[in-house]
Amino acid sequence: VNPVEVIIRKRHGLELEANEIREFVHSYVNGKIPDYQMSSLLMAIYFMGLSDEEIHGFVNAYVESGEKVDLSFHPLSKIDKHSTGGVGDKTSIILAPLLASLDVVVPMISGRGLGHTGGTLDKLESIPGFRVDLSIDEFKSCLHKHNVCMIGQTSTLTPADKMIYALRDVTGTVENAGLITASILSKKIAEGAQGVVYDVKTGSGSTIKEIDEAGELAKKLLKVSAEFGHKSIAILTDMSSPLGYAIGNWLEIEECVRIMKDYPNYDHRSSDLVELTLVLGGAMLMLAGKCQSIDDGKLKCMENLANKKCYGKFVQLVEHQGGDKSFIENPDYYPKAKYVHRIKAMKDVYIKNLDAKNFGLAAVELGCGRMQVDDKIDNTAGIIIEKKDGEIIKSGETLCSLHANDETRIEKAAHLIRKAIEVSSEQPILKNKILEIID
Amino acid sequence: VNPVEVIIRKRHGLELEANEIREFVHSYVNGKIPDYQMSSLLMAIYFMGLSDEEIHGFVNAYVESGEKVDLSFHPLSKIDKHSTGGVGDKTSIILAPLLASLDVVVPMISGRGLGHTGGTLDKLESIPGFRVDLSIDEFKSCLHKHNVCMIGQTSTLTPADKMIYALRDVTGTVENAGLITASILSKKIAEGAQGVVYDVKTGSGSTIKEIDEAGELAKKLLKVSAEFGHKSIAILTDMSSPLGYAIGNWLEIEECVRIMKDYPNYDHRSSDLVELTLVLGGAMLMLAGKCQSIDDGKLKCMENLANKKCYGKFVQLVEHQGGDKSFIENPDYYPKAKYVHRIKAMKDVYIKNLDAKNFGLAAVELGCGRMQVDDKIDNTAGIIIEKKDGEIIKSGETLCSLHANDETRIEKAAHLIRKAIEVSSEQPILKNKILEIID
Repeated sequence: VNPVEVIIRKRHGLELEANEIREFVHSYVNGKIPDYQMSSLLMAIYFMGLSDEEIHGFVNAYVESGEKVDLSFHPLSKIDKHSTGGVGDKTSIILAPLLASLDVVVPMISGRGLGHTGGTLDKLESIPGFRVDLSIDEFKSCLHKHNVCMIGQTSTLTPADKMIYALRDVTGTVENAGLITASILSKKIAEGAQGVVYDVKTGSGSTIKEIDEAGELAKKLLKVSAEFGHKSIAILTDMSSPLGYAIGNWLEIEECVRIMKDYPNYDHRSSDLVELTLVLGGAMLMLAGKCQSIDDGKLKCMENLANKKCYGKFVQLVEHQGGDKSFIENPDYYPKAKYVHRIKAMKDVYIKNLDAKNFGLAAVELGCGRMQVDDKIDNTAGIIIEKKDGEIIKSGETLCSLHANDETRIEKAAHLIRKAIEVSSEQPILKNKILEIID
Repeated sequence: VNPVEVIIRKRHGLELEANEIREFVHSYVNGKIPDYQMSSLLMAIYFMGLSDEEIHGFVNAYVESGEKVDLSFHPLSKIDKHSTGGVGDKTSIILAPLLASLDVVVPMISGRGLGHTGGTLDKLESIPGFRVDLSIDEFKSCLHKHNVCMIGQTSTLTPADKMIYALRDVTGTVENAGLITASILSKKIAEGAQGVVYDVKTGSGSTIKEIDEAGELAKKLLKVSAEFGHKSIAILTDMSSPLGYAIGNWLEIEECVRIMKDYPNYDHRSSDLVELTLVLGGAMLMLAGKCQSIDDGKLKCMENLANKKCYGKFVQLVEHQGGDKSFIENPDYYPKAKYVHRIKAMKDVYIKNLDAKNFGLAAVELGCGRMQVDDKIDNTAGIIIEKKDGEIIKSGETLCSLHANDETRIEKAAHLIRKAIEVSSEQPILKNKILEIID
């Protein structure tokens, strides 16, 4: 394989052979093809796209670059969930223990915050002691014992994807449905899942703004998953405004803990989050063959939230992965951010929308995310939404509060939040968060 | 300037600002922007193109990255010629001394062979002792004394172009009219030329196969040159078959020397070469303000070929740049290749076309060019065409002879040549080499 010829063929829109893709990817991992040739190929792919066969080739090349977790020792179905990333999206924190409590194995490999979107690993690590860097053996042993384990991408799993993803991030080649599909699917195959529910988000807080593009990605994910013998369901969801009331690492864990403890009497501001969690959970149960419909699966999920089996499983998971469960049992003991700044209404109005992207950026500004790769995450920083979109707010009432340990960060965040609030004199009609279920 | 944002804006087809281009290019030269971000930008440019303003920005960034030769000490007009590259294209070897003998300063910075096309520098270096790596001061002093100097791109002239050209070569991003224009024009501005005649080639032996693309490139070159106050003329020429009868470094010098010595009684197989040289020379004289029309200029060129002033100037140039003029005076003393293989006709036919690209590749195969960057060039290897396209050849007559010092190289070259010969039972109508003159 001559790398320049491969690049030029893709540039001309020709289809690459599986063995060309394999050799290009593996030579890149081995350092025989330099970054600049890979980035040039990736940009050509951005423009010319990848056929399903080519995506298939990338998935195989990624999986073959590392270890494949063998979960055949476990008799239960292995089902995972993947979200394309959003703001305040904390469904994984509830779904993983919930499904595990319903006799489904959830081998979940998650990511960190990226841009304005939060990351499950960062959230979990806000629980003191919680380890996400388990070895594959520790991962398997945790799954064996509790049906669930939540870790980060190890260096032995799909290292090619890890390297290429990092390169895409700095070369403007992230937004391509084919490359995204290959990246997601390879990790799911390597982690040992047999089926995956894809939460494909669209709207301002998503990395994919347009619903058509989200639909295209969802279809590609389903098609290529099926080719690998994976059962899957894709759910298109709206990410125009944040999910639930908390944005920020510990603040989001706390919101989840309160739902798991209080269900069905949880805070009404968590309603959209709970509804999405139940739909995703129902779909996961469908894939596991444990119910006849998503609605039927939702009922089973509601039951295990209400009987606290989900909460109990979460405490087990936290303990097994080294986390201090006392903060789960008593969230009030968790340290608080030093500064709280309240954004208040100037007159009586309806809240029409809270722009998710700006809320996400404001949270990063407050210290919840990284602006540079090696930035330290602030666990207690974040935003609490007091009034959700659709509600009425009276003059002088707090719309949301910004939590920070560095006072200088508040001003810029507050500016972003003020830009993010859309109001209306009439009661707005809210969009359903669940836009479409594709299977 | 955030490099990823610049890449993404270009990817979306937005126009980059001059200062963004400058900073991106200069940060690349300084090592602050890595190869992989530059190659990703270049591929985005390949797909989205560059506006005239953006090309302008690249030219300025390239020129500013290095030294600009100041030729204001010289009272005469400074005119150069640039060819997009072909097979057997040796016009520069004659044009440079010819124009110098007509009181035009020719500050010529040439390139090396690339792919199947030959390079003026490689040809000049086949003259024992000839130095093309002169310093800028030596370059100026040679121009002062002889009106002409022929060198390679130094490290101080447009280093950004040199780095980016090398990167384009290995990342499949060469073929873009905007990038080609910026690369060519920046060198011409830096070398101190005031006007340039562009020989834009099309057809199999050219890097640009389609005449439409060649026309687009010619127009871009003229437009952006004019914006820099450069006078220019573009000549679209056909590169379907090799120019003249010799391909190979010394063999081409020898063909030129014989034309300069024998004019107007030169070998008839050099006719297409001589005609193109005269048109280009006429156009250069036009730009220098020394004639009223290209035809008028051609007459002056013919005169200085016939009176041997061109030849005399060439001998001066060779001597000044360290070359051994005895081989110019007596080309027969030059060493010969060890092996000569004759390709003969099997029956009486007309030669319809000799495919330039395959002749070029065959010459590289024989040792005239490089397959790897550090390959050594064989000065005496090459091809002598005995019968040109349009001529009749009788069974048993030699069509061309392959010259090599390594016998093992002949077979593959002969195979390429056989594929390159197109014959006809009727006398073919030949295309004119000069397709269009644009100014």
